[in-house]
Amino acid sequence: MSHTHAPRLDPVQIGLIGAGRIGTSHATLLAERVPGARLVAVADPRPEAAAALAAKVGARAATEPSEVFGDPDIEAVVITASSVAHAELVTAAAAAGKAVFCEKPMGMTLEEIDRGVEAASRAGVPLQVGFNRRFSADFAAARRLIDDGAIGTPHLMRSVTRDPGLADPAGVPPWTIFTQTLIHDFDTLLWLNPGAEPVSVYATADALVAPAFKDAGLLDTAVVVITFDNGARAVAEASFSATYGYDVRGEVFGSRGMVSMGGGPRSALVLSTASGRAIETVRGDVELFADAYAAELAEFAEAVRAGRTPAVTGADARRALAVALAAIASVESGVPVDVATGAVR
Amino acid sequence: MSHTHAPRLDPVQIGLIGAGRIGTSHATLLAERVPGARLVAVADPRPEAAAALAAKVGARAATEPSEVFGDPDIEAVVITASSVAHAELVTAAAAAGKAVFCEKPMGMTLEEIDRGVEAASRAGVPLQVGFNRRFSADFAAARRLIDDGAIGTPHLMRSVTRDPGLADPAGVPPWTIFTQTLIHDFDTLLWLNPGAEPVSVYATADALVAPAFKDAGLLDTAVVVITFDNGARAVAEASFSATYGYDVRGEVFGSRGMVSMGGGPRSALVLSTASGRAIETVRGDVELFADAYAAELAEFAEAVRAGRTPAVTGADARRALAVALAAIASVESGVPVDVATGAVR
Amino acid sequence: MSHTHAPRLDPVQIGLIGAGRIGTSHATLLAERVPGARLVAVADPRPEAAAALAAKVGARAATEPSEVFGDPDIEAVVITASSVAHAELVTAAAAAGKAVFCEKPMGMTLEEIDRGVEAASRAGVPLQVGFNRRFSADFAAARRLIDDGAIGTPHLMRSVTRDPGLADPAGVPPWTIFTQTLIHDFDTLLWLNPGAEPVSVYATADALVAPAFKDAGLLDTAVVVITFDNGARAVAEASFSATYGYDVRGEVFGSRGMVSMGGGPRSALVLSTASGRAIETVRGDVELFADAYAAELAEFAEAVRAGRTPAVTGADARRALAVALAAIASVESGVPVDVATGAVR
Amino acid sequence: MSHTHAPRLDPVQIGLIGAGRIGTSHATLLAERVPGARLVAVADPRPEAAAALAAKVGARAATEPSEVFGDPDIEAVVITASSVAHAELVTAAAAAGKAVFCEKPMGMTLEEIDRGVEAASRAGVPLQVGFNRRFSADFAAARRLIDDGAIGTPHLMRSVTRDPGLADPAGVPPWTIFTQTLIHDFDTLLWLNPGAEPVSVYATADALVAPAFKDAGLLDTAVVVITFDNGARAVAEASFSATYGYDVRGEVFGSRGMVSMGGGPRSALVLSTASGRAIETVRGDVELFADAYAAELAEFAEAVRAGRTPAVTGADARRALAVALAAIASVESGVPVDVATGAVR
Repeated sequence: MSHTHAPRLDPVQIGLIGAGRIGTSHATLLAERVPGARLVAVADPRPEAAAALAAKVGARAATEPSEVFGDPDIEAVVITASSVAHAELVTAAAAAGKAVFCEKPMGMTLEEIDRGVEAASRAGVPLQVGFNRRFSADFAAARRLIDDGAIGTPHLMRSVTRDPGLADPAGVPPWTIFTQTLIHDFDTLLWLNPGAEPVSVYATADALVAPAFKDAGLLDTAVVVITFDNGARAVAEASFSATYGYDVRGEVFGSRGMVSMGGGPRSALVLSTASGRAIETVRGDVELFADAYAAELAEFAEAVRAGRTPAVTGADARRALAVALAAIASVESGVPVDVATGAVR
Repeated sequence: MSHTHAPRLDPVQIGLIGAGRIGTSHATLLAERVPGARLVAVADPRPEAAAALAAKVGARAATEPSEVFGDPDIEAVVITASSVAHAELVTAAAAAGKAVFCEKPMGMTLEEIDRGVEAASRAGVPLQVGFNRRFSADFAAARRLIDDGAIGTPHLMRSVTRDPGLADPAGVPPWTIFTQTLIHDFDTLLWLNPGAEPVSVYATADALVAPAFKDAGLLDTAVVVITFDNGARAVAEASFSATYGYDVRGEVFGSRGMVSMGGGPRSALVLSTASGRAIETVRGDVELFADAYAAELAEFAEAVRAGRTPAVTGADARRALAVALAAIASVESGVPVDVATGAVR
Repeated sequence: MSHTHAPRLDPVQIGLIGAGRIGTSHATLLAERVPGARLVAVADPRPEAAAALAAKVGARAATEPSEVFGDPDIEAVVITASSVAHAELVTAAAAAGKAVFCEKPMGMTLEEIDRGVEAASRAGVPLQVGFNRRFSADFAAARRLIDDGAIGTPHLMRSVTRDPGLADPAGVPPWTIFTQTLIHDFDTLLWLNPGAEPVSVYATADALVAPAFKDAGLLDTAVVVITFDNGARAVAEASFSATYGYDVRGEVFGSRGMVSMGGGPRSALVLSTASGRAIETVRGDVELFADAYAAELAEFAEAVRAGRTPAVTGADARRALAVALAAIASVESGVPVDVATGAVR
Repeated sequence: MSHTHAPRLDPVQIGLIGAGRIGTSHATLLAERVPGARLVAVADPRPEAAAALAAKVGARAATEPSEVFGDPDIEAVVITASSVAHAELVTAAAAAGKAVFCEKPMGMTLEEIDRGVEAASRAGVPLQVGFNRRFSADFAAARRLIDDGAIGTPHLMRSVTRDPGLADPAGVPPWTIFTQTLIHDFDTLLWLNPGAEPVSVYATADALVAPAFKDAGLLDTAVVVITFDNGARAVAEASFSATYGYDVRGEVFGSRGMVSMGGGPRSALVLSTASGRAIETVRGDVELFADAYAAELAEFAEAVRAGRTPAVTGADARRALAVALAAIASVESGVPVDVATGAVR
């Protein structure tokens, strides 16, 4: 037997911070679906969570992010910790010379994002943000068609996110629907209207799923209208309780045509009975976006190995957050808000 | 051969006012698809238009509405004249004791509608308004499901109208997109949220299809957000230029599920070639709504024969127009507008 | 009021023979959906059936076909009597100088069909057969695409008919699945492979829905393979018991692409709930083919008025029956049968 | 940092034989998508092919299968060599004590398959055959529904395979369409009619895509009808040239309902333009079945690690081949053939 050694590029050595739901999903994908990455460490302040996930994916466990940042063998970190900790972790990771993949939102304020971007820039490390929809086959194809001029100039846009359920309303921070959920829709709409800038935002929101938590600041249903400087109007819409599953859809209607994304069935199976036709729906984000999550992590590994800017950057995180903050200000004021200045109009 | 005469109910003798595009469609449907109606007269100020349509459908031609109103054999009139004349014609027809079917909008102001409603009430004649979507099989089925509780309480709603093209921008009156096009969407949304009242309206609109006509007041692209007193948020959206055809869709997302309407193909035909899969789209309202138009006219004939209130009334016209007027006020002011008072919020 | 009389063509005066299920449907469509026709008489040996239908559509009732054939005002007859009587009625109607529309099958033997065709030819009257699928929008569009070369030469074809249920197995004559049901599929496949001739037929059939009636000769499930002289292979398939409704589909796969027909939902409505997505299916032929039935009757009226050959002729009936007879012979022999000679191969 | 080592099961050490198209696909999936497997060696008689694939997946290259069979660290082999070599390789691998995954067809004769099955049985090693459709989400869900009784007893079945193109007709062995392509459909139909046995087979085939190669025995278009002992009739159909891509579909119609599989779009993207609606089709098997291929290889790794019988066995390979051989005999004889005896009926 010949012993030709593989000339494959060495996988990027990765440490992951945050062993929660999305951290578990990302860690598993890194271990099983991203050949360009090797997940070597998992950190979480809860020792059992860290140990369990580490064991599952064949990595070492840690409780302190510093254990990851201080490991010279680790080239890159994936941050899936609590959202409020994102910005600080990005900054610390970049300062330690690690490439950074950060789940959305990258920060809770524009200043936090700016600090993280600056830290990455200073360290000369790639910084990618987890706007996974761009990696979904249908949304990616839509952007290519828009770039090719297939639908002309966008006039009317739509992005919808409906979550299958609100497990624990008590644990959801105020404004989550804007900063955590609709932030995806805002990025999607900005990205699908290339070259245009959002001018103003009108938002209205309510607690219709869990009205008892409205006083605690939990809003579970929201509609946002964004007016762009090229005239396009975009509607983003979210709910925390879709009984039928996890529903992410998009639509861009332009001067020459329309692209529609999402809404596909769970599989190609159709059951026809005396009750009519039945089609299974997708029940969760991890199922819907399995390929997209794997693709964004592969993109990160490639960008790190190539030393190039990833496809989604801190600047993208900043733009989406600016829209989210304007939406929050609009709900508070009841009137449209200027995205650039945050002023009511 | 026995000579059993048919015990069918005598068809309602109908006169139609206005031989334009929709008048021609309605006249043809009355002649060919509505056995409970007999179209006996067609009036239009343009003698050739009246004569041509009358000849096509086997009716008499007239140039003056009064010729129709004064004919004692005519029991009911269908008003498909210019929108600005609707209210006056409704009032005159009712005063002459005729049952009235009026195309939308029934009037350009709430006062006009009130006068027409009052006239019909005084004369004791049925008055129906042309909100045809309620008679489309999918929208009608959606309402039944909502009544049955299949989707629970509405949380998020959507209604879309996209017209295939703006033939003559110069001839389109200002605010047409709200009073003529979105009026359908407003009625649909009000009807699909039974028991709820619209509280406030935010609208934004622009001239993206024909920017040169913006100064003349022509808006061709609009988005409207309606907040209801049961918490539901509804988005209505219209464009005057869908390259791919005539696009009417609706969606009601509630606490227990969602109904989606519209968006169907022109037929069940699918063509698969080296370019992929191709499906024909519906190109015009007359094609899309042929069955719905026939059904609303049949409903009118039945209501007249039975002496009962039709399924769509002047009160419905008033509610939809109130939303349209609030939307216009919102575009003018840039802020949300109270539907009941018309005040900016 | 001017009194311009309509220059419309006079409707064709029609008598209908057979007030059963399909006769009732055709009579109603003639009265309500076919302006070029006027149904003036309905004949059925059961006086009450004749009277009831006649009353419904505003026509005279008769019990004897001869009353229709002898009426000089009647120009054309629509034959919806029992299948076994079709051929004789066609011949008698043609002999009386009436144009003839005959439901399928036009006859139970090739000789019967030949006699009817000859009678119509001798009398110089149009003769149309009720192969309604050709008038369904999707199938008609498929044929146009095939004529335009969009899919190249047919290689593999499929036509499916599944009926929603077998109400009374006892009343179904032997071989019905071939002569009454699959006859539609045979015509469809011949028509969608223009210029080609069927060479041989292999068929297999069984009583799976109502096994108790197999001994009485009732077959309720069948598959037929037709080999054409241009190499195309077509599969026709039928069942008498589709729980989910009335299912008619077609597919033509050729050297350059494929057309697919049928399988559409009852309406564009989709219901999404915790159970997934639900779509209503079409439940009956009268619902599925309402427009197609109206179109074939309109075609008949037009052909009569224009004195031209209708779109579907007695020759088409003969070709389809030849395939049905070969299929029956194949079931009896267990081997493929030559269509031209009826010989086992 | 704690140094908890992962308690994951050790991946199964695998050698792959045959670095062709499907070998490359399987090797890549083993390396990137099957965490329970580690591909350590790739053998191919062409040294460059072996070296290139080995390098791509980080394995050692070999030219002789014996190098793989003789390696004590290798626990299992995946056979993706030329079909004619399958049976001998299965037997040799089993004799060497390796677990075996063999691409279809497992052998070209029933005797070959029997020898392989016996060898695996004697060695006590798992033997899995590459009927990947069973692992496709829609087909797998269909089988579960059938097992649950959702569609009752199968009456009419269909399985279709259409390949996107016939790259090199000259290189295709005779009967390939039955032994290589339709073998998938035969397995699918047998598997979706659990408990039933195929009784007789009628097949017809032709060279419509590449007629010039018909004399050389190449058939590129085929239709097969299988009659089962529970009365179900199944149609399998294949073509070597679908311009629109790779088309695999299935349908099982039973006494209580129907399941339909396949035919899904490439992604959820829909493009609507002046030409209508356009949907991308799937272009190749590796794209269509990526998840199914990964799942069958994962099943193999799991079965090996657990020492249990895999989900698809040599007995399944034998049953499917028996149908293929009967189909070939039917084409040769022109009449139906008995599956059990191979006799013409």
